[in-house]
Amino acid sequence: MESVAKYINSNRQSYVEELKDFLRIPSISTLPEHKNDLNTAAEFVARKLNDAGMENVKVIETSGHPLVYCDWLNAPGKPTVLVYGHYDVQPVDPLNLWDSPPFEPVIKDNKIYARGATDDKGQMLMHIKSVEAFIKTKGSLPVNLKFIIEGEEEIGSENLDAFVNKNQSLLKCDCVLISDTALFAPGIPTLTYGLRGISYMEIELTGPNRDLHSGTFGGAVENPVNALAEMISKLKDSNGKIKIPGFYNDVIKLTTQERKNFKSLPFSEKKYAQMLGVKELKGEKGFTVLERIWARPTLDCNGIIGGFTGEGAKTVLPSKAKAKISMRLVPNQDPKKISKMFTAYIKKIAPKSVTVSIKDLHGAYPIATSLDDKPTLAASRALSKVFGKKTLFMREGGSIPIVVVFAKKLKAAPVLMGMGLNTENLHSPNEHFNLNHFHLGILSSAYFFDEYSK
Amino acid sequence: MESVAKYINSNRQSYVEELKDFLRIPSISTLPEHKNDLNTAAEFVARKLNDAGMENVKVIETSGHPLVYCDWLNAPGKPTVLVYGHYDVQPVDPLNLWDSPPFEPVIKDNKIYARGATDDKGQMLMHIKSVEAFIKTKGSLPVNLKFIIEGEEEIGSENLDAFVNKNQSLLKCDCVLISDTALFAPGIPTLTYGLRGISYMEIELTGPNRDLHSGTFGGAVENPVNALAEMISKLKDSNGKIKIPGFYNDVIKLTTQERKNFKSLPFSEKKYAQMLGVKELKGEKGFTVLERIWARPTLDCNGIIGGFTGEGAKTVLPSKAKAKISMRLVPNQDPKKISKMFTAYIKKIAPKSVTVSIKDLHGAYPIATSLDDKPTLAASRALSKVFGKKTLFMREGGSIPIVVVFAKKLKAAPVLMGMGLNTENLHSPNEHFNLNHFHLGILSSAYFFDEYSK
Repeated sequence: MESVAKYINSNRQSYVEELKDFLRIPSISTLPEHKNDLNTAAEFVARKLNDAGMENVKVIETSGHPLVYCDWLNAPGKPTVLVYGHYDVQPVDPLNLWDSPPFEPVIKDNKIYARGATDDKGQMLMHIKSVEAFIKTKGSLPVNLKFIIEGEEEIGSENLDAFVNKNQSLLKCDCVLISDTALFAPGIPTLTYGLRGISYMEIELTGPNRDLHSGTFGGAVENPVNALAEMISKLKDSNGKIKIPGFYNDVIKLTTQERKNFKSLPFSEKKYAQMLGVKELKGEKGFTVLERIWARPTLDCNGIIGGFTGEGAKTVLPSKAKAKISMRLVPNQDPKKISKMFTAYIKKIAPKSVTVSIKDLHGAYPIATSLDDKPTLAASRALSKVFGKKTLFMREGGSIPIVVVFAKKLKAAPVLMGMGLNTENLHSPNEHFNLNHFHLGILSSAYFFDEYSK
Repeated sequence: MESVAKYINSNRQSYVEELKDFLRIPSISTLPEHKNDLNTAAEFVARKLNDAGMENVKVIETSGHPLVYCDWLNAPGKPTVLVYGHYDVQPVDPLNLWDSPPFEPVIKDNKIYARGATDDKGQMLMHIKSVEAFIKTKGSLPVNLKFIIEGEEEIGSENLDAFVNKNQSLLKCDCVLISDTALFAPGIPTLTYGLRGISYMEIELTGPNRDLHSGTFGGAVENPVNALAEMISKLKDSNGKIKIPGFYNDVIKLTTQERKNFKSLPFSEKKYAQMLGVKELKGEKGFTVLERIWARPTLDCNGIIGGFTGEGAKTVLPSKAKAKISMRLVPNQDPKKISKMFTAYIKKIAPKSVTVSIKDLHGAYPIATSLDDKPTLAASRALSKVFGKKTLFMREGGSIPIVVVFAKKLKAAPVLMGMGLNTENLHSPNEHFNLNHFHLGILSSAYFFDEYSK
């Protein structure tokens, strides 16, 4: 590995220049006027993969933006890694809040500023450069490798989802390497081994058949806003436990080791509360904040509306009230089962004096890999070597649906080797990427291939 | 009274023509482009009062629309009645839902259709015509009389309020006669002797200092929508009793007679539920629907909003949630005391994990007159004679702030001799007024003056 690491360290400057070229392409997937830029970005990725020494490089047209595929399968007997990433970026508005133009990358304090820097162009490029370092120095890779890079991550990955379904043997692999998440803190080697799922519901209550005058009718009929509030109050108990019968049935408890791992992360609840501007944090009793946001299911009202919501006073007794309520799920909760349980419970607690309609708006499965999985152990060793510190294990509270698609369809464990930071303004003005982590990421990728081949 | 009644009965046709003339004036008080129409309507009222034989008729300019005042004080030793009404009307939109133009009165099934027919031009004209009948047939009135007619009832009566405050001796009287409410049902003589008050509050909860991603942060902090729902659920118990400490302290209980009176009204809870489209009525345990809407305090959320309320799913953990909550009050609850109690209770039940701001948006006092008051008894006898049936007593669940102003400032009992019907589309397209009740109303007004003079 010495020659590979040396090669990587001696090419830092050119890696940054290549990243700048990549970042200059305004590949905003949601805006039709950027359609050509998406094609340009796909071609850029394909060229870089080709230059790196990957084989069978293909730009694959879809009904949306193209996919880029390639492979290198010349390591018989060795495992196969599928690298996933995306070349599309978020829109840039509000433009006036950017300190420099979003597609003219600039470097300040060893951070590169541009849309897509951390999400995901910079992180994705790391793996292409580590491949190149191997092939340029050794003429081969220690593992078999495939890349699948998409241009629709920011708009739902629909075409990739369909492609994975149809091309399971093409994409067959032993693990999926993804760098599209964050380190826990700068310079701390961390692996994300779990993501929460979600069940997102909407309930609408109808009381009287029209808005009524609250003077003339107040006291006669159920007010659907009051009824909805009452129902929401019955979803959780005073300890923050969700009261839907069966809700926790499939929850896999955190192991003693996992709880210990979380506790070893540098985290101050006090600073976290200050950052959020709250006097007091709040959640399920018996769990730390990190346990609650990563590894425990939660229930939140994402929105509520009913009656008069303008300025001042209007004496209306509303006909309708509506709430969006989502539950974050953890392994092995099933969003389909959860949405059924939610529906049954809501029907049970709804008063007879209102009618209820319930919609299942959206669901996603949770996922967590075992800390003893071969690829996870290899990634952990790789990060420790590169960062010179013990690798720590974290989870993430949100969902990344495509990770679950890979895991379910390809039966391949995800390795979430994120090198971003949650403070790097992804999806916001002044997105940036710490170049330290960029270079450490290229090395980590290379060491991972090496460790995983052992 | 025979000659007066005969005169009234023989002039039915001309009363309807006069009402039509009045209804042709588009006196929409809230629209500046109708300013001249308001003046025209005020002049119309003044002329009719003059023609009827009233004295000292004056159109009094205000900073808004004019007031019309007059009196007839030639009955020494007899009580003084102040008649109140308003010549302004509500806007007409949506115009396309009217079957005939709103300011071109038409008669169908003995109902006159036009904006302002029942609210309040038709009802107010009744009293002018009864005065005229007395003076034309007898040359005098059996009581002393004053009229105060305003043009700003639909926009808050601000100038009248100020005028009453400044002209208490001018308006001094023994009772205030108002026909701006409804009969309980067609052909049933009913007197409204009580109105509820109101305390209208707004509460806003702030959790985290910005909207958060519900995946990344769900489980860490209090969600202000959930907290608000929880707080709302603590405002009433399962029997519909309001849990704010001290809330019921000043409530005057209904007497056995009052409860008997309400029960004697022709009312079907089943039909009422059907009319409102609900499977089940709901309210405070231990009281009938009529008791609940007229004579018991209530608490309703008039509006609620927080988080994402558009179509589809957005995984936000909101920073803020807001609710408008009003309480209908009954004698002798004081809106100022109630708003303080509400504020104290809300602060008590708010979790430490959110900050709460509370606003008092609006308050009005409740009122109820004794059923043994001289004017109430006189009105009751008058209605019984005219309708040929026993007068029944009802209350009204809403507030009419000017009634309370009269009662408090002039120390005069209100006589609410409403001849409208709640089904007459006041404030809606196709407003109308039953001409039967119009003519019975003129007679009732005349009989009231006679009975009250005894």
